[in-house]
Amino acid sequence: MEKFDLHILGCGSALPTMRHQATSQVVNIREKLFMIDCGEGTQVQLRRSRLKFSRLNHIFISHLHGDHCFGLIGVISTFGMLERTADLHIYSHPDLIGILQPQIDFFCKGMSYNVVFHPFDPKARDVIYDDRSVSVETIPLRHRMPTCGFLFREKPTPNHIKREMIDFYQIPVYMINRIKNGEDFITEEGKTIPNDWLTTPSDPPRSYAYCSDTAYYPSVTEQIQGVDLLFHEATFASSDSARARQTQHSTARQAAQIARDAQVKRLVIGHFSARYDDEEILLKEAQEVFPNTVLAQENLQLSI
Amino acid sequence: MEKFDLHILGCGSALPTMRHQATSQVVNIREKLFMIDCGEGTQVQLRRSRLKFSRLNHIFISHLHGDHCFGLIGVISTFGMLERTADLHIYSHPDLIGILQPQIDFFCKGMSYNVVFHPFDPKARDVIYDDRSVSVETIPLRHRMPTCGFLFREKPTPNHIKREMIDFYQIPVYMINRIKNGEDFITEEGKTIPNDWLTTPSDPPRSYAYCSDTAYYPSVTEQIQGVDLLFHEATFASSDSARARQTQHSTARQAAQIARDAQVKRLVIGHFSARYDDEEILLKEAQEVFPNTVLAQENLQLSI
Repeated sequence: MEKFDLHILGCGSALPTMRHQATSQVVNIREKLFMIDCGEGTQVQLRRSRLKFSRLNHIFISHLHGDHCFGLIGVISTFGMLERTADLHIYSHPDLIGILQPQIDFFCKGMSYNVVFHPFDPKARDVIYDDRSVSVETIPLRHRMPTCGFLFREKPTPNHIKREMIDFYQIPVYMINRIKNGEDFITEEGKTIPNDWLTTPSDPPRSYAYCSDTAYYPSVTEQIQGVDLLFHEATFASSDSARARQTQHSTARQAAQIARDAQVKRLVIGHFSARYDDEEILLKEAQEVFPNTVLAQENLQLSI
Repeated sequence: MEKFDLHILGCGSALPTMRHQATSQVVNIREKLFMIDCGEGTQVQLRRSRLKFSRLNHIFISHLHGDHCFGLIGVISTFGMLERTADLHIYSHPDLIGILQPQIDFFCKGMSYNVVFHPFDPKARDVIYDDRSVSVETIPLRHRMPTCGFLFREKPTPNHIKREMIDFYQIPVYMINRIKNGEDFITEEGKTIPNDWLTTPSDPPRSYAYCSDTAYYPSVTEQIQGVDLLFHEATFASSDSARARQTQHSTARQAAQIARDAQVKRLVIGHFSARYDDEEILLKEAQEVFPNTVLAQENLQLSI
């Protein structure tokens, strides 16, 4: 199966702790890396992950709170020192440009590559990235400032061609990819071999949804219905639900309710408040509603 | 002796590594904390140090390269979330204001305290801070952009009064501080007891000099003559001296030459290039010239 992995670089929330880094993740789809959010310290976490810096060309920012974007200037500056040449694309609320561009101009003079901004409206549901392997769609969320999540949908992969059919019909090499992509095969005698004799279907396309930061927002379930993996913030335990409402964050139970109602396959919760010395209480609470839940943690890698 | 400690929060250089944090230090003088430089990740290192955030009111920035100031916005923002009320004073090249103020305005709306900028000219030698305990003086250095170090000079402390003299002459409480500060004592019979019978001299005032980043710059030795502790950058080994010249950094040997020629009491070297997996080579090189040298490392605390 083609690679589709999630790497958690940081899963803390606004206040720094010694247990968690600020928010950042990397999605690895067929060795192309997509970063989601970029809190302070992300560049060191990226190094720790051993992912190749040069494979990272796209960064998506959910919203402009510091714990989701203070690490950008460090990443950009370090990529400059490493003499990167490929464009780096940043997708975010338009306000980021006015904040980040002056820093780039001041700190990264004469840099060897360009930062290309792709502003979007977090309130709209839109495909903001699309290539042969994957599309990325915004997921409007409900938070104290314009915020959205991101839905990564893998593109279908070609069918598998059966080895024994290649041998039996002596299928020439130049036909293999065409058959994988759906063509029938015509033998030298003019006989048509239908594609579904020659191939087995590829694995169904997979999907990953990232929802952070957000209050409990049930209408999101329609858009993320059935995803293979959902990351949902779970800043608080239910015992702190008043604080969750006030700050427009979710409890672990609410994250699990979203997962259950959206019938996702697996849930990973994160964005933990600094008040918990141990997130087992959050895990337990979520698992009561949605058993297939795991806790995010720094350097955790999940295959989707 | 009154407290005068140096805490190393980070001693790496521009490129992030998993071994070292970006530059930052805290000087603790009589429980007042003074931060020098503030690279990315400083707020987590400050938490790790267990120093009290509320005791930190002054931050000095040597120059505006990212590895010395990218952590400021995180510190400022976190202090806001912690509902600090005391002003936070930042001393730096004037260009910092135009870079940082827009970020404060955007990310820290409605913050409970003020950030007060104190711009200075790094090319001039000036006292930029002065209170009852300490003065801070700029040390002009030679680097790729305007840069200075900082010289912390403790103020003299009062003399020690001899316990047995208090008892013998029945010195009243209200006179004790006056005698510590140099007054003679006059007995009820009108007899003058000279101050030097009553007291022993206080410890001589101590001093700490921070020199980073800088090329080898011998004229600095005059200003830092005889300091109790010198932090000097030692980004490279002598085998990389061409690179040191090119980037206007120092080798470990050059740092030690400055320490020797300035007749300082102790040297701590830091700002290590990411190319060294082990800084013993730098230590050895420095100690050949100036034996009383130690390597900086994260969470190292030195009493001055």
